[in-house]
Amino acid sequence: MKKTEKRIAHVETWVAQFDQALKSRNISAILSLFVEDCFWRDFVSFTWNIRTLEGHEEISRMLSDNLELIAPRQWSLLETPTHSDGITEAWLRFETKTTRGRAILRLLDGKAWTLLTTADELIGFEEKSGHRRVKGTTHGVYHRDKNWLEQKEEDEAALGHSVQPYCVVIGGGQGGIALGARLKQLGVPTIIIEKNPRPGDSWRNRYRSLVLHDPVWYDHLPYIPFPDHWPIFTPKDKLGDWLEMYTKVMELNYWGSTECVRSNFDDQKQDWTVEVIREGKPVTLRPKQLVFATGAYGPPNIVPLAGIDDFTGEHLHSSAYAGGSSFEGKTCIVVGSNSSAHDIAADLYEFGARVTMLQRSPTTVVKSETLMEVAFKGLYSDIAVKNGITTERADLLFAAIPMKIMPQFQKPLYDEMRARDRAFYERLALSGFQLDFGEDESGLMMKAFRSGSGYYVDVGASELIADGKIAIRSGVEIRRLRSRSVELTDGSEVPADVIIQATGYQSMNRMVARLISEEMADRVGKCWGLGSGFAKDPGPWEGEPRNMWKPTRQPGLWFHGGNLHLSRQFSHYLALQIKARMLGLPTPVFGMRDVHHRS
Amino acid sequence: MKKTEKRIAHVETWVAQFDQALKSRNISAILSLFVEDCFWRDFVSFTWNIRTLEGHEEISRMLSDNLELIAPRQWSLLETPTHSDGITEAWLRFETKTTRGRAILRLLDGKAWTLLTTADELIGFEEKSGHRRVKGTTHGVYHRDKNWLEQKEEDEAALGHSVQPYCVVIGGGQGGIALGARLKQLGVPTIIIEKNPRPGDSWRNRYRSLVLHDPVWYDHLPYIPFPDHWPIFTPKDKLGDWLEMYTKVMELNYWGSTECVRSNFDDQKQDWTVEVIREGKPVTLRPKQLVFATGAYGPPNIVPLAGIDDFTGEHLHSSAYAGGSSFEGKTCIVVGSNSSAHDIAADLYEFGARVTMLQRSPTTVVKSETLMEVAFKGLYSDIAVKNGITTERADLLFAAIPMKIMPQFQKPLYDEMRARDRAFYERLALSGFQLDFGEDESGLMMKAFRSGSGYYVDVGASELIADGKIAIRSGVEIRRLRSRSVELTDGSEVPADVIIQATGYQSMNRMVARLISEEMADRVGKCWGLGSGFAKDPGPWEGEPRNMWKPTRQPGLWFHGGNLHLSRQFSHYLALQIKARMLGLPTPVFGMRDVHHRS
Repeated sequence: MKKTEKRIAHVETWVAQFDQALKSRNISAILSLFVEDCFWRDFVSFTWNIRTLEGHEEISRMLSDNLELIAPRQWSLLETPTHSDGITEAWLRFETKTTRGRAILRLLDGKAWTLLTTADELIGFEEKSGHRRVKGTTHGVYHRDKNWLEQKEEDEAALGHSVQPYCVVIGGGQGGIALGARLKQLGVPTIIIEKNPRPGDSWRNRYRSLVLHDPVWYDHLPYIPFPDHWPIFTPKDKLGDWLEMYTKVMELNYWGSTECVRSNFDDQKQDWTVEVIREGKPVTLRPKQLVFATGAYGPPNIVPLAGIDDFTGEHLHSSAYAGGSSFEGKTCIVVGSNSSAHDIAADLYEFGARVTMLQRSPTTVVKSETLMEVAFKGLYSDIAVKNGITTERADLLFAAIPMKIMPQFQKPLYDEMRARDRAFYERLALSGFQLDFGEDESGLMMKAFRSGSGYYVDVGASELIADGKIAIRSGVEIRRLRSRSVELTDGSEVPADVIIQATGYQSMNRMVARLISEEMADRVGKCWGLGSGFAKDPGPWEGEPRNMWKPTRQPGLWFHGGNLHLSRQFSHYLALQIKARMLGLPTPVFGMRDVHHRS
Repeated sequence: MKKTEKRIAHVETWVAQFDQALKSRNISAILSLFVEDCFWRDFVSFTWNIRTLEGHEEISRMLSDNLELIAPRQWSLLETPTHSDGITEAWLRFETKTTRGRAILRLLDGKAWTLLTTADELIGFEEKSGHRRVKGTTHGVYHRDKNWLEQKEEDEAALGHSVQPYCVVIGGGQGGIALGARLKQLGVPTIIIEKNPRPGDSWRNRYRSLVLHDPVWYDHLPYIPFPDHWPIFTPKDKLGDWLEMYTKVMELNYWGSTECVRSNFDDQKQDWTVEVIREGKPVTLRPKQLVFATGAYGPPNIVPLAGIDDFTGEHLHSSAYAGGSSFEGKTCIVVGSNSSAHDIAADLYEFGARVTMLQRSPTTVVKSETLMEVAFKGLYSDIAVKNGITTERADLLFAAIPMKIMPQFQKPLYDEMRARDRAFYERLALSGFQLDFGEDESGLMMKAFRSGSGYYVDVGASELIADGKIAIRSGVEIRRLRSRSVELTDGSEVPADVIIQATGYQSMNRMVARLISEEMADRVGKCWGLGSGFAKDPGPWEGEPRNMWKPTRQPGLWFHGGNLHLSRQFSHYLALQIKARMLGLPTPVFGMRDVHHRS
């Protein structure tokens, strides 16, 4: 038997045994197919949750609760398994009572080390796409039917007034738009609420030199990928235009110039009251599901500064920074050293301001080219596409590595980047800038999942710092403001016409506090973070971003967010969960976490 | 040796001999590789023309003229050849002095029966797409560079004023937009002029029930295909919205609300003066190339009617028909029996008008479902996509059949359709409707290429005719109008509140007469038609649509048009021809036809 055939037989045996053990509900037989230190990550298919089960005991508990209800079946190999570094990797397909899904299995010595199970679609309620696409016309029927436009205009006029949406999404940035598109394709009546007038404005309104830091292959939206001539790094206004056209051609119910004023949940009726002001006029919506998609994080985190009343200069948060044109010749202090701090500092420099960056804690910096070459190339690149790794496939491959063991896959990449750019890092360190690669040296991706902060992908600002064109003060904070300067915690004084706090954002549940109630915000708890115990990510360990894209402690309340990648991928699972509830399908949620942190 | 390997070897031998004979400029050796009744269809690569060479003599003449200048080389097999019905089909790649191209070869008994050669790109001036895509940012460079939006706005403000476009396209429908997109990707500064305010309006303004008659796989635009959930048949307003977003995200210089008033060519300077009124203000453009993309055909063909001054009802051409809402209860006569005549008659019926269709000559009718199933399935369908036949591949496969022998491939399809829908055709004939399938029974596709008229893809109107809901009068024309009725050539009289002439369009060169001069319109001659000698397509035989997408007798004057398929495919070759001229590359045009018809 040839090597490949042997490997196929090997995996097929495992799959047959797994299928049989699931069918006979034999939990110990199932466990015997997994190694001791195993991981089963599930997106909706088994747990109706986003959840990684670590080890036999957690898997056993999940199966005890859900196996009967889920009734998995028809496991089969999707394609020829691959083998490297002692691990056999196989793509599988399977079904449950309500969903059709795919899995990625990694076998170590014949047993499962990692298993990712994902729901692709609801059986009987598949998206009308490909061979299921609609005909689009009522050929042969002529009795004054409404045409497409008339029907669309009638539906749009009714929704939110005579007809209530099943779902309301607060926030019409990339996250709300991607989720809205998924829900549209699943036939879930949805309204997206956005305070800016046009889709894409949340990008357009940012500082003028902003260009995406991630490459095009990583940034696709669902359904309509960027075309082949799209630049690798999308300029902000170009992305804005794309989002605007996307919203239009995907026929989303997008309410621009609309702000949510307040909302509350009716425990009796199990629905929401969402009060909004649309173009100056109040409208009350009554959806069953409410999604916060108000940005990857929450409201701006503005650090209170002693002596603020004495300060005669300008003071703003990075979220209010629209570009450096009015700061020419001014002396500016940028507080913080994450992405926006760097981008803003560079933008100010470009406009002829004198800039000092106050770095409060060590920061992970990697050069954009290096990150592309070392970290993205395998999954999200032109070469990956050539190797058949579409963006959708890359998303699943990346997700197949559980968060717990992700650092051990990430660390070698950052070791390589450091070696590669040694000279750059030496120059940067000489400027006084404090570098790190995370407490466990696992780099920026883990920082993103843990706290969403503490890193910068260098697209130029680090060179300005290394060259001394942007001054750096490290390990200090502002003690107090004076009339036109800042006193630092080391006692030194720095002149300042302008202070910009690039101090990040609060947790998304603070938006719940603002629009619904403090009580509900506390009940659902902090969003984002894995519970790693590292900086800004206190334990206990949760293994998946808190509250994101999955059920929360408040029925009907959801959080959606993340960069373009996460928003693309997880909008799919969130939309399936919402659609299942609309249909009244059984959605037995396993393993919802206790709330340990309020914000 | 296995069958497949044998076939590969067989084709490789032919290719090697062909390559060698081309390299050594040995025309008789080249001819010896072709059967006697051979066809070599070329799109730009050998002839810098759209031209089918029929038989040894024409091929020999082309090679004598162009072989040295074209210098073809590096012929190789692109993929495993296929074999059926005694024909071996192979995809090849090759280069010329200036282009990189693909070919489709069909071998019969070891010799070439048909060869299609096409230019894909200009060597050294490839589109910046895929692995050639631009980075999109000036990472690391910060000196108040314009950002993407600022640069775009500056360029847009300059073009047509301080900077002259190299090319002006008159007409911003699907044709102008597709060509504009191609030229944009090739870096040819272009302005598209359109009298309607917004891209897509030419579709939006048509009658309300209009839905594309061709399926989605046939209708893709270049660069951004319709997404997978797109309906099979696109409603007109949805297509309008798509074209609008397409124009925006492809960053075309689209001047809406702009009309061309007049134009003329400066023989000395070899450029055009194009006088336009843009939003009420006159602007003079001076491009080197001028493209008429004013619709598949030309201005409306309005048949003069005797007694028109006596007629007290309403009289309009189909191009001015925007929907039947104002015709409820009225007695309407639709003159003509092509697609728009049928669509308008059905729309009027739907709105409660009494409709009579005046059929002047026999018409090809096929049911939409049948056409999809029998004619489109192999190349443009969900199944074709599953078989790896992308739309771009289908376009080339279809083009690989020369026009001369196309009828013999088309006829069996229509025989099958007739057999399949026998009952339908019997019912339709009983109503008095005169059916035909072309003088040589080759069906509607050949009619489309020959005269662009004489057919209808049934999406409902034929059923209404068969049922007597739309009355039909056949083989008659209007002799004269009376006050509120029409006298027909058979002496009968039909009451009429409304007369709609769905009498087609004039040749596109009539637009040249209108905007430039009668003299130039006559010099370039009639557009469209193959010279088949069949109805409305007088000979002599030309073998390719006259004047379309290729050099005309007027330097710098081009015609672009056709349905979404032809517009998608041939915009590519037209754009390459224009770009080559902009670059000053040698473009030796072979075999330009004499002008035999003025219109």
